Amino acid sequence: MPETGVDGRTSPTPLRVPEPTVERLSTYLQFLYSAAASGLTTISSAHVESATAVSAAQFRKDLSYFGEFGKPGVGYVISELQGRISRILQLHETQPVILIGLGNLGAALLSYPGLTEQRFEVVAAFDIDPKKCGRTVQGVPVYALSDLLTECARLNPRIAILAVPGLAAQQTFDLAYQTGIRAILNFAPAVLKVPAGVTVRNVSFTQELAVLSYHIKTDQLDS
Amino acid sequence: MPETGVDGRTSPTPLRVPEPTVERLSTYLQFLYSAAASGLTTISSAHVESATAVSAAQFRKDLSYFGEFGKPGVGYVISELQGRISRILQLHETQPVILIGLGNLGAALLSYPGLTEQRFEVVAAFDIDPKKCGRTVQGVPVYALSDLLTECARLNPRIAILAVPGLAAQQTFDLAYQTGIRAILNFAPAVLKVPAGVTVRNVSFTQELAVLSYHIKTDQLDS
Repeated sequence: MPETGVDGRTSPTPLRVPEPTVERLSTYLQFLYSAAASGLTTISSAHVESATAVSAAQFRKDLSYFGEFGKPGVGYVISELQGRISRILQLHETQPVILIGLGNLGAALLSYPGLTEQRFEVVAAFDIDPKKCGRTVQGVPVYALSDLLTECARLNPRIAILAVPGLAAQQTFDLAYQTGIRAILNFAPAVLKVPAGVTVRNVSFTQELAVLSYHIKTDQLDS
Repeated sequence: MPETGVDGRTSPTPLRVPEPTVERLSTYLQFLYSAAASGLTTISSAHVESATAVSAAQFRKDLSYFGEFGKPGVGYVISELQGRISRILQLHETQPVILIGLGNLGAALLSYPGLTEQRFEVVAAFDIDPKKCGRTVQGVPVYALSDLLTECARLNPRIAILAVPGLAAQQTFDLAYQTGIRAILNFAPAVLKVPAGVTVRNVSFTQELAVLSYHIKTDQLDS
């Protein structure tokens, strides 16, 4: 049974959804793709729990932010749930994304198959190296960073992936902000200062490794 | 002033440190490296706040889990704070890491300069493609996955980076677990089922993009 929101309404319009809930929606969507690929047409919350390590109760609570889902005795119709979660995450239509920085990591991201599967389309890549510009990498045209404003006016991307060196990150963000982009996936080892209204998700490999390293120490070496 | 821990002790031995605190320690360490590189020898918590977007109060609270830091009127001596945070994160000595999966992403990770800067050393890479094995990539020897147990017995890595396809992730983890590795940085688009005592940090590019996509919708399109 869906719960009412914190404001007592059952409207499907989310007011303030916790960030971990949004993160888990993507996990559910990924699970639904695999379940459909394995020939299933419906799933239960117990099913979700065993496949994703998210508890059945948490799954139902996460969905409850967005209205009523599932039918008693039937469970969740996969195609319907997929459609609704895709719509919530704005993934029911292709999302144009740009990549800034075509070093090793940027190039690897272009060949990452998961992006197109979830309807993220990298429509352009930008770099400061003139040797890289004017070419096409993995089907994506590469432009000079100085063409960012012009190309973005034409392509209207909503998300920018920053894969530039740490020292270049802030000025690259400032430039991307001028194009109207308000959502940033930041791989640069730098803390971006951003105006209100901008969403940044940071991916820091060294930070992830440092957290693991901490746990090795406390969990294993000391025991 | 350092606060006492939740248990009322000021012992430097952490009991239960919140995960976000551990994550921020890595951010502080990165900031300290930049501050030292710019010629500073001491910093203040206000300094940290302006550079990292973590409040001065949060910074002091995070440090308080680990004992007393800083001196009134002087602030924090950078070299001392670096040394202590490095030690907490077990980054004061080189951490041997292995990489499993040498596709585009794995190869990009090997050339990521941040790893060696923070004393993570990829000591071996493993792949199932015989054409990749027996070679050296970015100075890292590449072995067949079937040699994982043998090579890990020799190299004693504490952390494994999984950069394999989603469908191969669980069986690859199971194999890594047999080597004694209990810390996993998982790039595979899959939810790993792991025994107690194993720490997994998941990096999912599509999940990060999905969260951004969600915010574009609610923050921009609806307003």
